[in-house]
Parts: sequence; C-alpha cells; structure tokens
Amino acid sequence: MNKVIATIVCLFIVTACSPHAMIAPANQDIKVPTTNAAKNVILIIGDGMDDHQITIARNYLVGARGRMTLDTLPHRSIAQVLTVADTSAGEVVYVPDSANTATSMATGKVINRGRIGTTAGSDEDIASIVELAAKAGIRTGLVSTASVTDATPASFYAHISLRACENPSTMQNAILYGFLPVDCSPDLKANGGRGSIAEQLIDSQLDVALGGGMKHFQFNAEGGSQPLLDRAEQADFAVITSIDQLHTADMDKRWLGLFSPSTMPVRLRGENGRIAESPKPGADGAVIKPAPMSCEPEPKFAGVPDLRLLTDKALARLNHNNQRGFFLMIESASIDKQSHQRKPCGSIGEVEQLNEALDSALEFAEKNPQTLIIVTADHGQAAQLIPEVSIFDAYNVPINSPGKLARIRTSENALLVVNYATNDFMQAEHTGVTVPVLTNQQGVGRVPSMILQPELFNIMTDYLRL
Amino acid sequence: MNKVIATIVCLFIVTACSPHAMIAPANQDIKVPTTNAAKNVILIIGDGMDDHQITIARNYLVGARGRMTLDTLPHRSIAQVLTVADTSAGEVVYVPDSANTATSMATGKVINRGRIGTTAGSDEDIASIVELAAKAGIRTGLVSTASVTDATPASFYAHISLRACENPSTMQNAILYGFLPVDCSPDLKANGGRGSIAEQLIDSQLDVALGGGMKHFQFNAEGGSQPLLDRAEQADFAVITSIDQLHTADMDKRWLGLFSPSTMPVRLRGENGRIAESPKPGADGAVIKPAPMSCEPEPKFAGVPDLRLLTDKALARLNHNNQRGFFLMIESASIDKQSHQRKPCGSIGEVEQLNEALDSALEFAEKNPQTLIIVTADHGQAAQLIPEVSIFDAYNVPINSPGKLARIRTSENALLVVNYATNDFMQAEHTGVTVPVLTNQQGVGRVPSMILQPELFNIMTDYLRL
Repeated sequence: MNKVIATIVCLFIVTACSPHAMIAPANQDIKVPTTNAAKNVILIIGDGMDDHQITIARNYLVGARGRMTLDTLPHRSIAQVLTVADTSAGEVVYVPDSANTATSMATGKVINRGRIGTTAGSDEDIASIVELAAKAGIRTGLVSTASVTDATPASFYAHISLRACENPSTMQNAILYGFLPVDCSPDLKANGGRGSIAEQLIDSQLDVALGGGMKHFQFNAEGGSQPLLDRAEQADFAVITSIDQLHTADMDKRWLGLFSPSTMPVRLRGENGRIAESPKPGADGAVIKPAPMSCEPEPKFAGVPDLRLLTDKALARLNHNNQRGFFLMIESASIDKQSHQRKPCGSIGEVEQLNEALDSALEFAEKNPQTLIIVTADHGQAAQLIPEVSIFDAYNVPINSPGKLARIRTSENALLVVNYATNDFMQAEHTGVTVPVLTNQQGVGRVPSMILQPELFNIMTDYLRL
Repeated sequence: MNKVIATIVCLFIVTACSPHAMIAPANQDIKVPTTNAAKNVILIIGDGMDDHQITIARNYLVGARGRMTLDTLPHRSIAQVLTVADTSAGEVVYVPDSANTATSMATGKVINRGRIGTTAGSDEDIASIVELAAKAGIRTGLVSTASVTDATPASFYAHISLRACENPSTMQNAILYGFLPVDCSPDLKANGGRGSIAEQLIDSQLDVALGGGMKHFQFNAEGGSQPLLDRAEQADFAVITSIDQLHTADMDKRWLGLFSPSTMPVRLRGENGRIAESPKPGADGAVIKPAPMSCEPEPKFAGVPDLRLLTDKALARLNHNNQRGFFLMIESASIDKQSHQRKPCGSIGEVEQLNEALDSALEFAEKNPQTLIIVTADHGQAAQLIPEVSIFDAYNVPINSPGKLARIRTSENALLVVNYATNDFMQAEHTGVTVPVLTNQQGVGRVPSMILQPELFNIMTDYLRL
C-alpha cells in the first residue's frame, strides 16, 4: 500500500510491549474500556476447512460415529463468503481465495482475490482488528502453519496489493516459480508504501507471530544491507527458531517464531507419499481404481513444533501479566495447501492439528472465561467424499471418476474415497460454498445462525469493545 | 418385509381417522400424554440439499449478500450421515442414499443403501415415527415432490428390502428401465410380507400423502383385480389429482394426492433445457467452456401444485379439529434428482420450493407455537460451486474442469459456475458430507450443534412424547 496511515506507528507498539510497559502507556490514542475485565478473542481458521474436509477427517480420525473436539462446541453458524472484482464497481465474484477472505475477517471489508488489507479498485489501507486492538492496548498474536507472511496471517497486519509480495525480493519486476511475474512497486517504501509483507510484520504492532517463513526474513530490508531478521530484533522481537527456544523465550519480548523456510511440514501423508491418482482404463472398458492406501506420519514433521504447542505458547505469552486481554488468530493452513496438491492424508492431519489447537484454546478459556473462541474456515476446497461403491452399482457398467481420487483405509475397516475434480491443473481449485462457524459458549447470542463472513470482524471487535 | 408386526394394523388407523373419530379411540395401545397441549413436528427434507446446493441457490435467488428464509432460522446444527453394509456385521459405508438416510430419520436406525424401514442383514421391520405417532393418536402426513412411494417418503411408513419395489408390478422378477433386475418376492403378501410400497401406503396409518406417483397406484393389488386407487378409496382416502380437488377435498377423510405419474415436474430449467456440459478443446490447447446460460421456468411445471400449496393444504388438513398434534414430513425431492441429472437450474428452483414450504410452516408455527420445525437434508450431492476465473489464472495456461459444468448468469451480473465431477456415469453420485440441520426456536436446547443423523428420530419423538 502506497499511503501511510500516520496514526499507526511502529514506535508506539514497541513501547507498549517493552518489559517496562505492562500497563498500557497513557497515550491519547488508547481507548480505555469502561470495565477492567480483560476479554480475549481466539480466532481459529482452518484454511479450506469446509464441511467436506471436516467430514473426511472425522471419519478417518475418530470414525463415522465419533466426535472431534470441534464437534462438541456448543454453538454453530455458517458464513457466506464474499468476494468482488478488483474494480471500483466491485462486481460480485462467487469463489474467493485466502487473501480476500482473511481480509474479510480481519477488517470487515470485501475485497478481491490476491489482495491483502486494501480496498478493491482503489488500493486504500483498511484498518485490521490487530491494529485496532493494539491501539486500544490489547495484545495481538498470530500463529500459522504457513509462512507468517502468507495470505491468511498477512491479512491481519499488512496492506498490500498482491499477496505474493512476501519479502523485499518480490516487490519489483519479480518472477515467482520461474515464470509468474509479480510487481508491487507502488508498495515500495521508496514510493510511499509500506514495503513487503515481511517488512510490514516487523513494523506491525504484533506481540506474537509464530509459524513458517524464515526465508522471507533472510533478505535485506528494502534499500539497505541489513537482513530483516536483524531488523526484527531491533524492533524488540525475540527470534525463535526451535522448540527449545520456544520453551525458553523471553516473556517480555515480542516473539517472531520461524520454524521452517516457508510452509511448515504437515503431520500426515499418504502411504509412501502417495497422493490422489487418476483411475486407469482396464480391459473391456473396466476401470482400475487407484489401490487403497493408508495414511502415515510425514517424516519431515519430526522435530517441528505442532500447532498445539505453538498455540499453548502463544496463549501463555499473550496472557503473561496481561490486564487488558488479547486477540489471537491461529491458522491450520495446510488443510488447504494439501488439498490443492490432492493429498487427503495431509489435509486430515492438519484438521487434527486444528482440533488440538482448539483443545488448547478451550483449556485456556476454562481458566479465563471471558474468552470468545471462534473456529471457522476461510473458503471451501475441492475434496469430495464420494462412494467406494457407486450408488449406481446395480447398473453393472464401469463407473469412473473423471478427477483424481484416493481410497484411504480407515480404522473402522472401511474405504474413504476422496475425489478432486474441480480442474485438470496441477493444483485443485477452491470452491464458493459457505463455511462453518463454531463458537464456545461466549458466542451464543453474539453469532447468528448464518452470517456474512465480514460480520466476524464486527463480532470480534464488539466483544473486545474496539 | 416378510414378517408382519401384528400390533400395527391398518384397521385401527382407519378407524382413528374416520369422520367420527376425531378424538383417539380408547385403545389400550395408545399412550395418553400427561398434558393436553398438542405438539406438532414439521420435518422439511431437502433431498441432496447440502451446503453447496444451498449456497448455489442463495447466490442465484437472492444474491451473495441475500438471505433466504432458511438462512433466518435461529438454530443450526449438522448431522453426520451413517450407513452400513447389508450384512449382520454392519460394516461402515461412508456415502449413503435416500433410503437409508430417510430410514435413519424415520426410525433412528442405521441401515444399508436401497433398503426401507428394515434392518440391514436381517430384514426386520423397524417402527417408524409415523407408526409410533399414529399409535399415540397423533396424526401423520407426508408431502413430497417425488412419488409418494419414493425412498424418502416410503421410509416413513413402509418396510421392504428394496426401494425399487414401489408397486405390485415390481415385486417379482421385475426388470426396471429395461435392464435392472428387481426382486422383492419375500415381501409379497402371499409370502407373509407387507407387499409393495404403494400397497403399504394404503395399509398405513397416514392421514395425508401428497406428491407424485400416480402410476404406482394404477396397478392391481397383489393377487387381485382391483386397482390400488380403488383400494385407497376403500381405506377412507380421498384421492386428489388436481389443484381444484385439493382446494375442495373432504377435511374428514384421509388424503392421497397424486399430481403426476411419477416425480412431479420441477420449477426451473436451464435456458432451452440446457444442462451442465463438458468443456471442449479449442485451438492451441485452449479450453472452450460451455456458453453462459440463464435459468427459465420449466414449462411442464405449469398447472402443477407447488410445494408451498401442498404444505399449506397438508397443514390445514392435519390441524383440522386436531386436539392431539401431528407429524408432517415435507420433501423437496428434486434438489437431488436434478443434481443427479446435472441440472443446476432445476436444483435451484427446488431449493426455492423448499424455502417457500418453510415459509408456510413458519406461518403455521406463528399461530401454533408448540410446533418444532426442522429443516435438513438426507445426504450430500455432487454439485460444486467452482471459480469462473481459476484462482490459478495468473499462470496463463488453459485450465479445464474434467467434469460437466454450467455457467449460470445471475441477477447480480455474475457467473455462477456449477461443476459435476463425481463420476462419468449418466447420473452424478451422492457425497458423504455432513448435512445442515436448522430449527425454529423450539429446537433450541433440543438439537445439539452436531448430531448423528438417526438422533433426529429421538429429538422428534421426544418432542411428541412418543
């Protein structure tokens, strides 16, 4: 974004979060609530976690008659996702991406796909719940299994026209993945903008940012020779890169935890790394389906902090000597990313990680009752649970899926067939389905049974009295 | 079903529903509730109406920011669908059909696909809510846009091993659709069974059955020369076949309304009857998508009673001089049937019909507050809302759907792209996703935020004190 909002300055929040500023400084920008009761909001986002993803995970993890923690939350709603084209007219678009949906939740505004925290067509910054909370002296944190600069977390603190501009190297005449041109030059600091997403994270008011994305902080800051990691330390961040460091990190510093170069490894994978595959033609018009497979631990996951641990630690840090409450967003990012790659075991493991993060949040809320927990998804994803035996089996003709499918053995001795058939590209598409919204008891009376996704922003800011 | 349950006899209910028996007769089988307050249950089933179907319909009918009546219901849950194999071991199956899911709701038991109101593996009759209600002197009715003998309504009154045995001609060595062998001979009355589904409807305790399916009642009853329609009249049914007759039907008779030979015509169709189509290859690897289309009124729908009218009339008949309450199931059947045929406009119109039936139910409940309204679906369906412009559009390569798709123009000047890609057969598959459950205020505290589908039976029978 090429217009600086002067009222939000990095210096303020660094001061507010320094060891000697447990109580918010007497700054005239800070809204003092009328009661002293600290309130907390924990927003847990399963990226791409629509009801199909949850059903597939439930059947695999606990069986068709089982219940995950998220199934036991007392209150349920759905959110209609909203997207517009990148024009001033704001034409309706029915299928979103994570950038525009996370911006809906973070700011209450509807924007176009690919954009972060700025208006469609006019590229104006939109204040986020993180900024409003910090302004009110309320702490803020983000946890993600993606890079902390990826679209979902970025939407809570950054303002930029393209989600791809995650670090200084991507800002001008960049080519991503060998062929994808990316340019955010109007957002360069030199041009009056806020710089790349990684730079905006360092300049943000965040108290905690834990996830992947180390590679984005190894570039030099725009126009300088200083790596962003050094800049982060100057901005009072403790840079944390291992589980050990996470256990011993300074509770009076801001935390920047970077546990992998980009997206963090996932928990599960298909047997021997198998993913969904195309059925093959057999003799006499028959169809040879992919062989059944099991899910197995993903070896790369070993040694990586899981989402439960990151959540436990983020909650402890945010709640430490805190009289004013906090906002924490937790994202299980690779439900979506694994579904794009047609890896159902991967998505299942990441729903399980989300469910464990929810366990952590619920344990926290047990001790801190003024805590609103919301579990939701940003958008739908491609995976569909289709029959192992066609419902038209009695017709006795070969019946095939035109997509790619995986037949997963479950512990109840059945086959769970996951189909990806939204496109023939190397990555599956999102869908435009409504997404689930679940809350703890604090959400009852606050979240109607159906909402528009941007209304989550109002529900959360009202709860925090922002 | 080849075992007669002697306690449920047709004669009883014919007596109970005769003009001179408004108050339940003093039969020792009747449970008298401890209070006199009549309670009603209205169960509205959208066949195949998962969240994708609702989202697609919402976007088309009221726009992405709009609300249908069903979006305004105050309480939301989801139901996990359950299915087993047709064996005594009851192996888990993850994708259901309407026969087993409607049986879940009607009886509380989990059975196999294709079966109606009987146990998997052992073929025992299972008492349904209609039977239990009638036994308690509570009236019962079914409304469907399918044949009244189709799987969903049949599950509420019939007991038979195969859903296809809708009339006497299908009971023994039958061939359906020119090639599908069907045999229900153990269910022949001559073999100690209950006969075909149409015969079981006549023998049932139902006060009201409105829908399609006239052709099934034009066959002679098993082993006789009397058409089933005559038998129905002997069993005190007024046979109703037109809107005019519906307006003037005898309020003191049972009602059998048959408004079409089989499934009733639907409200909407694609422009000139178009359905979802395969994209075609263009020059240089490009993809030519199906041309955009509008939805238009289905000409065959003219003169057919719509679901709202059928609901209004069923409610009036069931509530007429009624001191004891009623159970009414209303099915919008062709959300599913049109999706099988990859006709998104058809499904949209049938969601609209369901929504109007809900309007009728809510107006009734306004005047009769002791009325529990539940809106749900039986199972998921194939349709997915996918992007008009791929989220990978920036890669600048042709991206195609491997399924069949329709690009529908909406009133907000956008394209709604519906994809069907669960198989390559002439009909699309069901899916195993959880289904929405919505209730009016009477459901608050009675329906947890997530249930197993058979628990709906307990919720409804508890409400009716059965």
